[in-house]
This record gives sequence, C-alpha cells and structure tokens, in this order.
Amino acid sequence: MGYADLSTVDLTALKVELEDELSLHRAHDLTLNMARGKPSAAQLDLSTDMLTVLKGPDDCFAESGLDCRNYGGLEGIDEARRLMAILLDDKMENVIVGGNSSLTLMYSAIGRFYDFGARGSKPWHRYDKVKWLCPVPGYDRHFAITESFGFENIPVPMNEDGPDMDVVERLAASDACIKGIWCVPKYSNPGGVTYSDEVVRRLGFLRCAAHDFRIFWDNAYSVHHLYDEPEQQDQLLDIAEVCKASGNPNRYVKFASTSKVTVAGAGIAAMASSPDNIAEIKERMSIATIGGDKLNQLRHARFLKDGDALAAHMSKHAAILRPKFELVEKKLSEGLAGVGGCSWSHPRGGYFVLFNAPNGTAKRIVQLARQTGVVLTSAGATWPGGNDPKDSDIRIAPSLPPIEELDVALDVFCGCVKLAYAESLLIDRLTH
Amino acid sequence: MGYADLSTVDLTALKVELEDELSLHRAHDLTLNMARGKPSAAQLDLSTDMLTVLKGPDDCFAESGLDCRNYGGLEGIDEARRLMAILLDDKMENVIVGGNSSLTLMYSAIGRFYDFGARGSKPWHRYDKVKWLCPVPGYDRHFAITESFGFENIPVPMNEDGPDMDVVERLAASDACIKGIWCVPKYSNPGGVTYSDEVVRRLGFLRCAAHDFRIFWDNAYSVHHLYDEPEQQDQLLDIAEVCKASGNPNRYVKFASTSKVTVAGAGIAAMASSPDNIAEIKERMSIATIGGDKLNQLRHARFLKDGDALAAHMSKHAAILRPKFELVEKKLSEGLAGVGGCSWSHPRGGYFVLFNAPNGTAKRIVQLARQTGVVLTSAGATWPGGNDPKDSDIRIAPSLPPIEELDVALDVFCGCVKLAYAESLLIDRLTH
Repeated sequence: MGYADLSTVDLTALKVELEDELSLHRAHDLTLNMARGKPSAAQLDLSTDMLTVLKGPDDCFAESGLDCRNYGGLEGIDEARRLMAILLDDKMENVIVGGNSSLTLMYSAIGRFYDFGARGSKPWHRYDKVKWLCPVPGYDRHFAITESFGFENIPVPMNEDGPDMDVVERLAASDACIKGIWCVPKYSNPGGVTYSDEVVRRLGFLRCAAHDFRIFWDNAYSVHHLYDEPEQQDQLLDIAEVCKASGNPNRYVKFASTSKVTVAGAGIAAMASSPDNIAEIKERMSIATIGGDKLNQLRHARFLKDGDALAAHMSKHAAILRPKFELVEKKLSEGLAGVGGCSWSHPRGGYFVLFNAPNGTAKRIVQLARQTGVVLTSAGATWPGGNDPKDSDIRIAPSLPPIEELDVALDVFCGCVKLAYAESLLIDRLTH
Repeated sequence: MGYADLSTVDLTALKVELEDELSLHRAHDLTLNMARGKPSAAQLDLSTDMLTVLKGPDDCFAESGLDCRNYGGLEGIDEARRLMAILLDDKMENVIVGGNSSLTLMYSAIGRFYDFGARGSKPWHRYDKVKWLCPVPGYDRHFAITESFGFENIPVPMNEDGPDMDVVERLAASDACIKGIWCVPKYSNPGGVTYSDEVVRRLGFLRCAAHDFRIFWDNAYSVHHLYDEPEQQDQLLDIAEVCKASGNPNRYVKFASTSKVTVAGAGIAAMASSPDNIAEIKERMSIATIGGDKLNQLRHARFLKDGDALAAHMSKHAAILRPKFELVEKKLSEGLAGVGGCSWSHPRGGYFVLFNAPNGTAKRIVQLARQTGVVLTSAGATWPGGNDPKDSDIRIAPSLPPIEELDVALDVFCGCVKLAYAESLLIDRLTH
C-alpha cells in the first residue's frame, strides 16, 4: 500500500494535511543545509593539532633534508607522497602531490590532454567533438569540467556494482571520439556505490576505439568508511593492477585529497598513474609550477604519520558521521513508511545518500524544501547539464549540520517528498 | 686599457697565470651556487612566527566569519586580497588570491586564452601560429610557458627604462598573431630594470593588430627594495590606470606572490585585472577549483597585517640582501678592473645582477665556473630557447649563499670571466 493506492478523495485530503504540516515548519524560519559534502566543525576540530605541528625552522626539513620553506620538489616530498599513496592505493614512486585541490588536478589533466594530447596522441582540441562517459547519477563538478572544454557528456547508468559495463563497452568500442570516463569508484558520489571487482576488471580490459582513452579514477572516499569493522568496509580492486594486466598500463589516472581527512580546501591533493604517465605529467607540470606547498605537505605527513594513524583518524570522522547517516536511514524509513514510489541508498562510507524520489517530483521536492528553509543540492545536479530525465535523483548530504538540525531538516524533507508525491499523483489523475 | 689592448705574448702569459689561479680554487672542492633566485635561510627565518600564527579553531575564521578550514571562497578571503592588493598596486575588489605559485596563475591564464579565447575572441589554439613578445634578457620560466603552448617567442631588446618600445610598437601593430608580452616591470629579472612612466604609458596606449592582446605584468619584485630610503626605491606607474585611460581596460593581467616575502613555494599568489577580466577568470576558475588554501591566506594576512608592517618586514629582507648585492658590486669592480669588455647592472631591488660578458664568452664562463665548483644559471637561459645571439648575458643570483660563500664564488666568477676573455681574444687573433 502507498499513496498511489489511495482514492482521489483521500489523496486530496492528505495533500491539505501535508501542506499544513509544512506550514508549521515554515513558521520556524529554518535555515538548514543538506546541499554539499562539507565536513562539520566537529570533524575539522579533529585536525587542530596539525595547525601547529610545525613550530619553528628546525621542524621545516623534509626527511630528504630539503628545507620545505624554499623552492623545489616538483612531485612533492617523499613523506607526503607515501601518505597519499595510501589514499591512492598505489606506490609512492607513482605519486605526485599537488596543491590543495584534487579537482584542480583533474581539470589540469583534462587541460593537458586537450592542449597537448596523451603520450603523443593528437591534442583533443583538434577533434570536432570529444565525448566523455559520465556514470549517472554522478558528481556535478566532474561533469562541469568536461562540459567546459566542450566535450559531449554521455550519461551511463549506474548499477549497484558500478557503471553499466554493457553500455560502457558498447560505447567505448564504437566511437574514437569517446576519450574517457569519470569514476568515483568507492562510496561513489552520490550513490555510495563501490565498483565490484568485475566492473573494475571490465574497465581495465575495455576495448576502446580511442587508443588514448583515459579512466579518471577519483578515489575521493577511499578511506572514508562509516564503520570500523573490516567486514562492514567496502573493498576496491586496484585499477592500476588491472590496467597493467590488460596491457593498457597508461589508461588510468587516480586522484585523491585530504580535504575530507584534515581540512576542506586547505588539505593536499595528489594523483597516481603509470610511470610513463607520471613522467609525462611531470614534464608538463614543470612548466606550470616549481612544486606544491611543501610546508602543508609536511604538516600532513607529520600529523597523519602512517596508515595505522590515518585509519585511527578516519575512525574519529566515522564516529561523527555514522550517527548522521543512521539518522537519515531512520528518518526516511519512518517518515516515508507507507508512502511508496521512492527509495534511497544505504552507504557504508562516503558523504552522501542518494534519494530516488517518485518520478517527476525531485525538482518540486527541492523547491518545497527551499521554501521551508532547507537547502538541498539542486535536482538534476547529479546529471550532465543538470538534466535528470526522470526528475527523480536527489543528493542528500548529511555531514555538515549538527545532528539536531539534521533531524529537523529530515522531517521537512520527508514532508516535502510526501506533498510533492501527492501533488504529482493528483495532477496525473486530473490529466489522464 | 683592457685585455683587448694587450699584446699576444702578454695575453698568453696572462692566460697561463689565470689558469693557475683557477686551479687553486679547484683544489678546494667548492660547491657554491649563484644559479637561482632563492631566499636564504636567514630570510626564511624572518617568517617563523607565521608558522604558528593560527593556533586553534578560534583563530581560523576570516573577518567575513567564514571558517577557513572548510570549502568556499573562490577569490580568496578579503584580508588576503587586501594584502595582495598592496603587492599588485591595485584595489582589493580586482584581486583573486590563488594557490602557492604566481607561475601557475600565469600558466593557467595562458591556458585559458589558448583553450577559450579572451572575452569572446577566437581560442588561440585555432591559430596556425601565436606569437609572443619577450623582452630580453628575461625570465626563463616565462618563456618556457609560451613556448610550451607552441607560441613563437619573439625577443625584444631591453633598454635601461624597459623594453624597446619602438620595436614593440612596430611588431604589435603589424601582426594580429602577436597576442601579448611578458613583463617584469619592476627590478626586472634579470636586468634589475624598472619600466619608466613613458614605457608603461606606451604599453597601455599600444596600437595592437590583435584586439585580444594581453600584457602579462609579473610584478614579482614590487616591494623588494634593497634600500629603505624612498629616493633609493624605484617607482612604477600603474599599468591598470594607463590601460583604463587609453581605452584598453582589459589589456593587462597583473601577478604577484609572497614567495620572496614569506616562504618560497609555500606563500600565496594572486592576480589582479579589470572587473570584466576578473569576472571572466572567476567563471572559468570556478570549474577548476573551489578556492585556494584559505588557512595559508589567513596566516599571511595575520602575519603581514598591512602596508606598514609589510614594508617593515621587507626592510628586514633588504638588510640581509643589501650586503650581498653590495659585495657583488665591489667584487666585480675590483676583480674586473682593467679587464674591459664587460659590464653589469646596479639594481636597487629584486634578486639578480645582470652581467654582460665579453661577446662570445658567457657559455665558457659558466662552464669554467661549474668546473670550479660554482653553479651559475645556464648561459642563454635569459633568452627564448636558451639562445643568446651574443653569448654575453649571465644572471647572477646572490641571495641564497651566505655572504662568505658568495665572496669566494665571486672570486671564482671573476677568474672565469678573465680567463674566458683571454682565451677568446687569443682565439680571435689566431683565426683572423
């Protein structure tokens, strides 16, 4: 039983009731935000000691002896590369540490291919059209990068174990203008999906019409588990190993940052790729920079130390985030019991819950929520060009608000879902 | 009287004597470096307090109330923009604060024009050939950027008051493929030249065949005086004002960083331009980044405070650098007295002394110095493609070595100049 089974009379009465409920919320002048994946103040406080880990000149030397207060070190200091290698599931030798933003590293990587090609291939700006595969729902800032370079973003459905590989294989094999794919392979944004071993293997072994096809492997949430128990943590096959085994060793570029480990926007970002790719990237990078901020690299290496310390630190994040995700699960289960037409993800890590609203209601839900003082990510934002054909996907970001605010915001959200669904069913009946 | 006036017999004897002198130096296994414009450890120590200026969460809020530990703030926090406006000789409203490197900001600016054009103009990658004006001698990393995008770097002679504007005017007016010019307008790298008011005016009023011509105004040494007395400090006309007055308000982009104010490679960089340009840059930048490292911006703003505190801080740098530059002047004057054929700059700021060796000897001098344990910037590096047609320009960077090492390095340098000159004169006489 759900709203769809109600009579039109009952549904009309329900709609009035739901409107009244929302009005009550509106009277409270709420300003709540579940829009973006920002860490909360409590999470940021976990890294307070990092602020002062470098106290004086003697603290500023890297293990190589390099003074991190002076120029040099294009690829980053070894201790920072070693740290980022953990997040990137790779070896230190294959890692370049950049500035504060993995997004910038991705943009620059696309820019290099666009301007200069990949390992001797034709620069991508010389094509009439470059196309890019975009698993959907996905990350709006990814899609914006390829769109900004004039690429055609091609949506590919996400399944429960990653992108629909039948579709990916068909497209990649058929069109040499398809140059790559965006991937958030673990605890994906927004679906919380971790790619299965089979999906990773099929990506590595993909038959591509373009010999310079590239997998952009944004492992943004690689150590961002919600649970400490290993059996509750998702595992991801290493794309590098698969690409090497398949004879496509240069097909991938991995990205990660500490923005959701230490401080957002003041962390360090890094990439890893094959030795050949890294050599090419370094040659190009050396024109654009003398190197990243090594003091901040050193701060991170001293503060996060090693894999065990990093895991312990991430466990503290989980302790703050887990109750929020569990609250989302509880409030949605309870608040939407008996409504029908919708579903949502149950992630074990990352920063988002994906809500699948009844078809055709996502925009309306976001609008109603905004009118009631709750800001959500725009409906459609998880699709290229903002165009969700079913108008169904809503990304819920529970990390930023304190839990008591989240509680209220979720009440409002459920109210908006119910009202939008009731409205939509009534309109359907009126027009058919 | 100089070496050129000596008899061949005397010159031959002198050459042997000079070789013996250098051999003595060689016996000391020197490892000295006058190659790159790096601050010395003593200079870096001046900013030690900046390391711990942010002690805890309460210190991390910008004056706007923004938590600098979280995402946001594309153009940088106001207090950092205000600080960088001083270095850029501009208003806070026109300033964007970036990451740690002004070089990266310049590379990205060229990249944007290449990929997307300037304010609606044709993307520069669509031209068969883009050309760029390069005042010489100049900064090798500038030339490398335009070269890397396939531009043709066109050398333009530097006079004592800036680039030869007769040449610039003739070239810019004649060829729509000439899209811009590199400028280090104050205490230039390497000549120490500050552009005269007339040169700045002629740049602003330049008649350009390309309507999207751009002046890259790298004001790297804007507050880097060697002397505290105002009458000993060079003054520079504001290119922004001149461009506005000439009806070319969007022609310039200014760049600066704190790499030689606080810590090299871990400072903050910024750019300033017209409101229209800044709006366009921000729109593009928003695709590539959520914003720079605001904690580092805040560190800088708190540590450097305001214009007066900045000037006092730069005066401490000058107190360390001045004796080194004065030593260069003294050692070259004394060591090369009676040699002839060479000259050098007498800068009042910046990081370099330009040495004009006897024609055809610069490469040999650098080679001899290297063999004697003194590393100099490669001869030719100050010219596009490393090609100094007279083989004469050598960039001396006295900032990094302690003064006692600099003293020895300059002895070696003078010995190398003398030997190379003697060799060159003898070869000339043998072959003519």
